[in-house]
Amino acid sequence: MAHIDLKNDLPGIRGPMAYSPETAKPLNELAEILLRDDNNTLSRGEREMIGAYVSSLNDCFFCQNVHGSMAQHYFGCDIQTIDAIKKEYSSANISEKLKALLSIAGSVQQGGKYVTAEQIETARNCGATDKEIHDSVLIAAAFCMFNRYVDGLNTWAPQDRNVYVERAKMRADEGYADSDIRK
Amino acid sequence: MAHIDLKNDLPGIRGPMAYSPETAKPLNELAEILLRDDNNTLSRGEREMIGAYVSSLNDCFFCQNVHGSMAQHYFGCDIQTIDAIKKEYSSANISEKLKALLSIAGSVQQGGKYVTAEQIETARNCGATDKEIHDSVLIAAAFCMFNRYVDGLNTWAPQDRNVYVERAKMRADEGYADSDIRK
Repeated sequence: MAHIDLKNDLPGIRGPMAYSPETAKPLNELAEILLRDDNNTLSRGEREMIGAYVSSLNDCFFCQNVHGSMAQHYFGCDIQTIDAIKKEYSSANISEKLKALLSIAGSVQQGGKYVTAEQIETARNCGATDKEIHDSVLIAAAFCMFNRYVDGLNTWAPQDRNVYVERAKMRADEGYADSDIRK
Repeated sequence: MAHIDLKNDLPGIRGPMAYSPETAKPLNELAEILLRDDNNTLSRGEREMIGAYVSSLNDCFFCQNVHGSMAQHYFGCDIQTIDAIKKEYSSANISEKLKALLSIAGSVQQGGKYVTAEQIETARNCGATDKEIHDSVLIAAAFCMFNRYVDGLNTWAPQDRNVYVERAKMRADEGYADSDIRK
């Protein structure tokens, strides 16, 4: 049971977002720009994967499944592939650039000062642009917020992982901003 | 020097915000609602203090000074008082309710799951409402993002703490949303 009376029985972040629509608005706008904006050389799948990875490091069941399922949807892969990336991206079948950005995201999860100049250099050598590095840092930082919002209020989450997989296509089509949180 | 070329020499979060205005917009709107909205029974000083406290736990020099100076401005106190609250709020001359909310914020900083039912109960017993608990959790979570954005990109920060104190009145008057980041 959530720590406060959210006045609804929606799972995960949707509970506090419906409780507090005035803060939900900029939170959803941030997610929309970071994860879906087409003016970005990182694919939507790559950006969702960064969010899912950070959420797994933060042990947030709801977020890692929502965004892992989104990455799975965009990548067109199975859930085991996403789980393998979360568990050990370095040996996964993904680009060296995404590996370098996941490494940076993992450091951001620990704290901003854990990011090293060497990690940035490695990302650059793999072809990452300044904007891609910027966005990876901000996506990782934003999920450190989303994960804490979800678990800090002790929201509930469906335990059947298929629920998340089944919802991913709708969310991919409709996006985060202006979406009906209750749906 | 920042990890990426921000195309400006603004300090702290203002650097990446000017570099990426499309993400700065929801970030500033979130700060505005959480920290300044008048439809809130927590004072602006209390909310800024929660942000400054979490920023100090995250060892973010820029954010803890910006928001510590904001709290100082609203409280009408000196910098030593703010430092004392950051260092050991339990013995500071603040309300028991704010102490309970700072305790929750400190747990959120560690991770959402660190917040306990006992901490929530204590806050309630001190008169905290569900919305005040919600906002404290989200403020703490948001600063875990802001702090990581600032330090994950290795932005620079003025070392003279008076710079922050002197800017606080302007920021208090103008707010976060729609403000000119370059000013």
